[in-house]
Formats: sequence, C-alpha cells, structure tokens
Amino acid sequence: MTEPQGPAADYLAFLTGMIEQAGAHAMRYFRQPLAVADKNRGQGVFDPVTQADREVEEFIRASIAAAYPGHNIIGEEFGSTQTGGGKTWLIDPIDGTRGFLAGSGMWGVLAGLMDGERCVAGAMRQPFTSETWAGDGRGSYHIYEGRKSTIHTRPCERLSEAVVCCTHPAMYPSAESLAAFHRVVAQCRFSRYGTDCVGYGLLASGFVDLVIEGGLSAYDIMPLIPVVEGAGGVITDWQGDSVITEAATGMTTGGLVVAAASRPLHDQALTLLNL
Amino acid sequence: MTEPQGPAADYLAFLTGMIEQAGAHAMRYFRQPLAVADKNRGQGVFDPVTQADREVEEFIRASIAAAYPGHNIIGEEFGSTQTGGGKTWLIDPIDGTRGFLAGSGMWGVLAGLMDGERCVAGAMRQPFTSETWAGDGRGSYHIYEGRKSTIHTRPCERLSEAVVCCTHPAMYPSAESLAAFHRVVAQCRFSRYGTDCVGYGLLASGFVDLVIEGGLSAYDIMPLIPVVEGAGGVITDWQGDSVITEAATGMTTGGLVVAAASRPLHDQALTLLNL
Repeated sequence: MTEPQGPAADYLAFLTGMIEQAGAHAMRYFRQPLAVADKNRGQGVFDPVTQADREVEEFIRASIAAAYPGHNIIGEEFGSTQTGGGKTWLIDPIDGTRGFLAGSGMWGVLAGLMDGERCVAGAMRQPFTSETWAGDGRGSYHIYEGRKSTIHTRPCERLSEAVVCCTHPAMYPSAESLAAFHRVVAQCRFSRYGTDCVGYGLLASGFVDLVIEGGLSAYDIMPLIPVVEGAGGVITDWQGDSVITEAATGMTTGGLVVAAASRPLHDQALTLLNL
Repeated sequence: MTEPQGPAADYLAFLTGMIEQAGAHAMRYFRQPLAVADKNRGQGVFDPVTQADREVEEFIRASIAAAYPGHNIIGEEFGSTQTGGGKTWLIDPIDGTRGFLAGSGMWGVLAGLMDGERCVAGAMRQPFTSETWAGDGRGSYHIYEGRKSTIHTRPCERLSEAVVCCTHPAMYPSAESLAAFHRVVAQCRFSRYGTDCVGYGLLASGFVDLVIEGGLSAYDIMPLIPVVEGAGGVITDWQGDSVITEAATGMTTGGLVVAAASRPLHDQALTLLNL
C-alpha cells in the first residue's frame, strides 16, 4: 500500500481540488445539445445518461486511482472497482441530471470517501455558480469563487420556522411516504422543490432547514453526509438510523433520507414521518 | 411629455442596463439574514416581503421615473403610480422570493413595458448567475457575464419529448387545475419544479419546452411575455387567450399561464388542460 495515511484534511484538500476540475469537465456539456441515452428504456422511467456523466466520472476515477491506488471506487456510471482495501470512494458524476438537462443550476458533482462504516470526507461542486460544499463530519466549508468559509446549519428548532426542500414529489417510493412528507410540509414555513444535491448544501449553509427525500442511491447521499454533519446538521434514514447502514444494504428500504439543521427539528420531522 | 419616442430597442437597452443594476441591489441581501414580514399574516399564506424587495423596486421606480417621466408604473411592493400616459411599466422586484430565501439561484428581478394592450419589452435578471433574459416580442436575448446572444425556443413539437416546468404544485388555484397540470406532466419527458421566472428564461433559451403555472399576478408574467414570444414561443392563459387580457382584469381566472416552445406543443398542452 503506497497510499498516504494523512488525516481527513488531506482527503478534503484532494477532494476540493479534484472536484473543481471535475466540475469544469461537466460545464463543457452544460446548456449544450446533449445526446441522451435512457438506461431504463422500456421501463417507463426517464434516467438520462449523458456524455457529461461519463466524462466526469472517468476523470474522477482516474484522479482517485492516481492519488490513492489502494482505494476502492464505486460510481454511478461505471460501477465498482475493488482493490481489497478498507477505503471506498463513491461518485455521482452529475447529481440532478434533470436540473442539468433543464439548464438550471440545481445539479452538482458529488464524491465522498468511506473508511469502513464512516464517511470521512465528502464534497459537492456546482460549477455553474462556482461553488463547492465540502466537509469531513467535524467541519464543513463553502468555497465560492475560490474563497473558503466555514459553514453552519441554522439554529432552527421548530417546524413552523423551517424551510423544507425536496427534489420532486415523485421521488418517494410509495403513496404512504409521499403522504408522510406532506405531513411535515404542512407544519413548515414553506417548501421548495427542485433542489437535488444543492438542497443539502443550502442546509449546511443555513439557508434551508430540512431536506426530506426518497429513492436515493448510496452515491447520491453518502458524499453529502460529512457536509451536513460537519455543519452541525443531523442526517439519517426515516427510522432515525444511519444512512450508511441503509446504504451498505443497497438502500433497500426506499432510499429515504431526512437531513435537518438541528436535533430538535430532526426529532419533530421523524415523529411526523412515522405517524 | 418629455419622454423619448424611440423604438422598442431603446426600451430594451434601458431595461437591460437598469435591471442589471437592480440585480446588484438584490444581491446585497441574497444569502444574508433577512428580516421577513408576512403581508398575509393570519391568512395562512406565506408571502415574504423583504428589504430586498423594497430596495430593488424603489431603485427601478426611480430609474424609470428619471428616464420616462410620462410613464405609469405598477410594482408588487409599492402599487400603482399613474401619470395618465398610455405606457405602463410592471415590476416584480424579486420574483421567486422563496427561492431567494432558500439561497438558491431560482429567482430574478422582472420589469416590462406595456404600450396599451401590447407588451413591448421585458427583461429578467438573475444576478447570482450573472444572467439577463430580455425580449421585445420580435427578438430575445440572453446576456451572460456581459456577452449578449440571440436565443430561440427548441423546436419541440411532441409532449413525449418535452420538459415541463412549474414553480410549485401548490400554486394552482384549485384541485381541478392541479389535476389538469398532472395530465400534461404524465405525457411529458420529465417535469421539474422550483423554477419561478427562471423557467421562462430556460424555455426561451431552448432548454425546457413548457412552463405551466397558476396563481400568477400581472407583474409576475407580463415582463416575461416579450421574452418568450421574441424567442419563438407561445404564451397564453389556459383558454388560449392573451395573458394580457387576463392581466387587465386582475388575473381573475386564477392566474393560469401556459408557455410553450412551439405552437403544436402549446395546442397539445391546451387540449389536455381543458379535458
């Protein structure tokens, strides 16, 4: 094993530099005519796979393999590369492909590092707005046009004061889970859709207070866990259990995630979700 | 009357310069702690009025009054200033206040000019992404980081290939109109929420194909009409009638608007909306 054994800060430095370059690759395809393939053709689900997805993931995989040749890599487009080591990178080259295809800024490039059962570093890059969110579970950072600042969730402890986000009401795995989400929305200050990974960044930065979603895959959410937790937020599945445990079993219970700005808010959301 | 009597291009030049400055005012409040008042306190509707709204509208009103002292002005925050002339400016200082409050880029500053029954110029500024969309009904333009380019809607003529946007499913005035929207969504390639005024810009730029909304006020939509029409799009109420006629009567039929990239797409959407 030739990999560096430095602290999480080393991984964050690698991640934030690498993901900014990855975002530049994505930008070459943003708001350009796209050749879209449909992975789920015939299954009634629209799930675009673009050249941007592939090129960004290839860049990230090559960057990781060069820096950390002993690490495993799991990505949305090109599956799993196992080296046998205990550290695993997860990649979502373009999270929010629909936002990307629609020409909006509500998408991002995600990558994160698992060390056994812990997410030790994660980052999200939104290249169109020149923003990176990154965290290691102990601290989180927002980098805007090259300027880095420490971020914290908002001290919101009541649903009536909370702004809640979700990518799309059709993302929940069942009518029951959609109804549960609506129970929370009914108690909140207002709700906002169309947020994808950016919603978790806005939560970490203290602009929204809850992100409640379903249908997520491990690589959609794992890189965001250290960002949310490092900013003081709480993120679990809808049972209050670790998203990591859920992800290790393939998100078999519906990819249901609730991220909250504070523990009291998280508790209130969980109670309503499980009525 | 001392006002200039130049062609619409003169109004567009004034508008694009003025609205870029207005956007800079808005940016001073973006992602800052906001003092939010609730215009509809006690009525169960959240409708934030921020210092940003007021300052931006004051700036725009003063700019218009200085350049065109004979024109009427109607704005969201400060109501109507009537001079008795036939030309009227409409202002929505921050369209998408919820997107603004959530720290996202899905909001904008809107202003447009009515000459009697015609919208002769309109513009939308998204300062966080350094973008302006502007049009005069005959041509439309996207200005990004100071670079101006002509824009056109996408030649999408089938719902099955269309991307449809809407700000929020709760914006429709009735369960029937929400169900009608869902009938269209079910036939489309995919739907995207959370778009506010930016959705109309993305339609004019050819990245989305339909925007179907309800609950709009005149100043929400009038400035966007010359942008959509100038790019080759079609925009009417849900009966296929002019939004201007609807606006002149106070959007009394629910503020229902459908904007489409092409006439065939518009026809198909109207048919489904009125089943």
